[in-house]
Amino acid sequence: MKVGFIGLGRMGVGMAANLVTAGHEVTVYNRSAIKLQALVERGAQAAARLADACRGEAVFTMIADDAAVEAVVFGEGGVLASLREQAIHASLSTISVALSQRLAAAHATAGQRFVAAPVFGRPEAAAAAKLFVVAAGPPDAVEVCLPLFEAIGQRTFRFGDQAHLANLIKLSGNFLIGSVIEALGEAIALVNKAGVDRLRYLELLTSTLFKAPVYETYGRLIAEQKFEPAGFAAPLGFKDIRLALEAAESLRVPMPLGSLLHDRLLTLIAGGGEALDWSAIGQLSARDAGLA
Amino acid sequence: MKVGFIGLGRMGVGMAANLVTAGHEVTVYNRSAIKLQALVERGAQAAARLADACRGEAVFTMIADDAAVEAVVFGEGGVLASLREQAIHASLSTISVALSQRLAAAHATAGQRFVAAPVFGRPEAAAAAKLFVVAAGPPDAVEVCLPLFEAIGQRTFRFGDQAHLANLIKLSGNFLIGSVIEALGEAIALVNKAGVDRLRYLELLTSTLFKAPVYETYGRLIAEQKFEPAGFAAPLGFKDIRLALEAAESLRVPMPLGSLLHDRLLTLIAGGGEALDWSAIGQLSARDAGLA
Amino acid sequence: MKVGFIGLGRMGVGMAANLVTAGHEVTVYNRSAIKLQALVERGAQAAARLADACRGEAVFTMIADDAAVEAVVFGEGGVLASLREQAIHASLSTISVALSQRLAAAHATAGQRFVAAPVFGRPEAAAAAKLFVVAAGPPDAVEVCLPLFEAIGQRTFRFGDQAHLANLIKLSGNFLIGSVIEALGEAIALVNKAGVDRLRYLELLTSTLFKAPVYETYGRLIAEQKFEPAGFAAPLGFKDIRLALEAAESLRVPMPLGSLLHDRLLTLIAGGGEALDWSAIGQLSARDAGLA
Amino acid sequence: MKVGFIGLGRMGVGMAANLVTAGHEVTVYNRSAIKLQALVERGAQAAARLADACRGEAVFTMIADDAAVEAVVFGEGGVLASLREQAIHASLSTISVALSQRLAAAHATAGQRFVAAPVFGRPEAAAAAKLFVVAAGPPDAVEVCLPLFEAIGQRTFRFGDQAHLANLIKLSGNFLIGSVIEALGEAIALVNKAGVDRLRYLELLTSTLFKAPVYETYGRLIAEQKFEPAGFAAPLGFKDIRLALEAAESLRVPMPLGSLLHDRLLTLIAGGGEALDWSAIGQLSARDAGLA
Repeated sequence: MKVGFIGLGRMGVGMAANLVTAGHEVTVYNRSAIKLQALVERGAQAAARLADACRGEAVFTMIADDAAVEAVVFGEGGVLASLREQAIHASLSTISVALSQRLAAAHATAGQRFVAAPVFGRPEAAAAAKLFVVAAGPPDAVEVCLPLFEAIGQRTFRFGDQAHLANLIKLSGNFLIGSVIEALGEAIALVNKAGVDRLRYLELLTSTLFKAPVYETYGRLIAEQKFEPAGFAAPLGFKDIRLALEAAESLRVPMPLGSLLHDRLLTLIAGGGEALDWSAIGQLSARDAGLA
Repeated sequence: MKVGFIGLGRMGVGMAANLVTAGHEVTVYNRSAIKLQALVERGAQAAARLADACRGEAVFTMIADDAAVEAVVFGEGGVLASLREQAIHASLSTISVALSQRLAAAHATAGQRFVAAPVFGRPEAAAAAKLFVVAAGPPDAVEVCLPLFEAIGQRTFRFGDQAHLANLIKLSGNFLIGSVIEALGEAIALVNKAGVDRLRYLELLTSTLFKAPVYETYGRLIAEQKFEPAGFAAPLGFKDIRLALEAAESLRVPMPLGSLLHDRLLTLIAGGGEALDWSAIGQLSARDAGLA
Repeated sequence: MKVGFIGLGRMGVGMAANLVTAGHEVTVYNRSAIKLQALVERGAQAAARLADACRGEAVFTMIADDAAVEAVVFGEGGVLASLREQAIHASLSTISVALSQRLAAAHATAGQRFVAAPVFGRPEAAAAAKLFVVAAGPPDAVEVCLPLFEAIGQRTFRFGDQAHLANLIKLSGNFLIGSVIEALGEAIALVNKAGVDRLRYLELLTSTLFKAPVYETYGRLIAEQKFEPAGFAAPLGFKDIRLALEAAESLRVPMPLGSLLHDRLLTLIAGGGEALDWSAIGQLSARDAGLA
Repeated sequence: MKVGFIGLGRMGVGMAANLVTAGHEVTVYNRSAIKLQALVERGAQAAARLADACRGEAVFTMIADDAAVEAVVFGEGGVLASLREQAIHASLSTISVALSQRLAAAHATAGQRFVAAPVFGRPEAAAAAKLFVVAAGPPDAVEVCLPLFEAIGQRTFRFGDQAHLANLIKLSGNFLIGSVIEALGEAIALVNKAGVDRLRYLELLTSTLFKAPVYETYGRLIAEQKFEPAGFAAPLGFKDIRLALEAAESLRVPMPLGSLLHDRLLTLIAGGGEALDWSAIGQLSARDAGLA
């Protein structure tokens, strides 16, 4: 399939490479030219202008935040202006529910099709084509994208024809991860202040009831108090919790645990923790217990 | 080994049976005579009085709550009065940190040894000898108990010589489970109000980042809104969260998520939910969202 | 002084009348013509178009929310386009800190002056010229407005030259009122469930430590469970708490009590309480206690 | 009237003196002899033993906490053993609801009468006979005490015949004060981080909507960040919030704002703030905002 790919960050570069590997004809575009070369060597074509990445049946965007997506889509020579009729824009990054709704409407008006397909997984999973894809949008458009999603992930979950539901689900997932972090932070502060070794405690948890990657990954960061370099920096975590709460507010769904996460992350950032991994909110539990 | 077993509730009956199966000489005692017969048929001896279960090298207690444990241990003809010198009392149920400290001190004064060995797992795991045992206490006493723990569980984790730390760890584990329930309750209310199918959403979670039994078990209860019959009733969950917070208070460890769980469970009980599974706090998220 | 007044809601109508009474030459404008007549009879001039209310030295706006203010100021034939150079726009309603900053910048660019002067007090206080005015903005512009503020209020508090600080202070005041409501709701539920008469309890509070109008007003509403007709409807209270939290987020100030109020009000609205006074969050405490 | 007074702390000494001044025959007792002399000079009699203060129609106790009250009442030669039949024990300090219930039952069994009469007011108010007394218990017993309460306070509020309700009301009052502190702490952090002068802001609040002593007293402490010497130390505030929550738990009344106060005070104490006034939780808001 002829497909464009916009946004070659830590996640995007692996995804684009996997599309090439799977035999698709991929045109890549990035604001800065860095990283283009490696992809070209693997068989991708480099687009000089953003519009050149929008000539195929579909274009994928993997772009940091709402503002950047808006610029890329609605800006002059952007995705909206460049896609041909019936072509598909699949947005793979974590954006707000409201923007997703706006994108769906704008593309529909332009005779194009919009699919939301946010992914779960970190850069290593992106490189290894092990992502999980949560896809929603017009069924025929999702259908067209399925082989592409298969090229970048280990499994695709479809959630109907309303694109923004995929974004909501993705945000809810990050809320769940944040909850794990907060719970681990409090539990580890508790047992540690009593004298229990943090890593030994974590080993117990992850060998028994909590044998899940998320407990292992974040439990280790908290137990080792190793928050730099950030895998997922505090401001990004804060942004996602905010987007989840924003959607919850629109839907009129109170989320007290979400509010707690919001306040924790805000405290972390107010205290100068911008460069830390978002799991450093676990350290606030230790601090409040007089441990740090 | 010659060992007594007191408390044949849903958990205890399986544990006692597994001790018999492993070849130990087990004398069982229960307040009511029900369930004794089945164990006797499998080879256990029935004690007429509590004291008769305290004649061996060790006695296990698997008893509902602090008050019942106090009665069994400190009461007339109780464990403390009946155990011989150097014999071991291993407490397997979820009790308070303060009571555990008191038990350790009382047994030490009486020349006996106290081991705390609370277990993770539900009745089916107890029956299948698949429990996880968290053991702490005098090292030589724990050593003596190891073969017994192996008979009832799939793995034993040792946490040093202070018995009450095992109880603290157990309580922290229930706090972590409660946190999972609250997080799932909020997340499911959020996506469900937007129109996402609850079970389909849960399938996504438990196939990807949250592939852990605790998410599967509790996620299903919340998604299916099936809170009766209770696997672990709200008042028991409330009791354990209270004990965790009580220990946290003594240790001076603030736990805001713990406080949230406390208030949720209190709301559930105040609203008449005594007979429901503690995961019914998930339903409060739905109610507050105007869904129920 | 020659002054315009835009926005004749329940608050504005009293304020405009008091400006007339004080001898100022007042031109009033309202989207709908209702209420104009009464003011004209008292000596005001009715503006046919919004721009006609912007011909004097100053124009006051007393308009419901951010969106309406934006329309009135930035719209075609709006305040910004109609005010002459050096003239003053004084915004008296409760708007966001961000909009206040935007207004100050836009007016400065246009060679005009912006003063934020939100008021504390309800419609009766507005009618009786008993409001409290919190004013901030360019000192000379505030100086010019002082006699006008004296005509509508009992006291003016100046807070320097950054207009948006007056708005922040106003929002913080509504947060404090919301906190009183939540605290009273919980305390009244507590003593009432034990059997104490609610009104008798309130009498004690307001005769002793809490002899302040805000405790009397809101305490009575909660104790009498009389939430209709709404003096200040739940969605308005929710809006103000949101604006306070939005400002707090920008400033990086975590406000856990603010988050609690946010979630309470969202619960109230999700449950169908749009038409109720915002003090009806007190009823949620009663409900959660199983009282309602 | 012939009356005993036990507990000559900062509050008790003023109350006892006012009873003497009002013409009552007062026998005072204190664990340490300090302060006795001054009262004797004003006309009181000093009791050598606690029992000697229990010979009259009534005995007042003004004693720090539950444990101390228990010792004084239930101990050998204590109030319970020493009061004659029909005599009255009036407890004026802030004790738990559970202890109050226990005292009422024990005195009733002994043919004595128990009145709970906790007071609102600080040592200066006690010295000036300006306290507010909240009284509950057997009506005839309260009746007998009324002239005594009039001697120590400016007004007495009666709340029926269940003594413990007076204690619950007193605890709820301290919860309300704690709520004011938390709200002020957050609001002051918010406006202060934006650049508003804290004292100027406080002046606005206490001149307008919040013209109540509690806002003035605590607002000043927080605005001036002057938490030493403590008027009411953090551990005492924590104790009272705990007692309020304990009663709420028994009554099944969830109090999320109460939980927030609990966690704040625990954080303050865990961080070494034992010697600070409980209003120092306001400083935690500043700290979390990165201000301190």
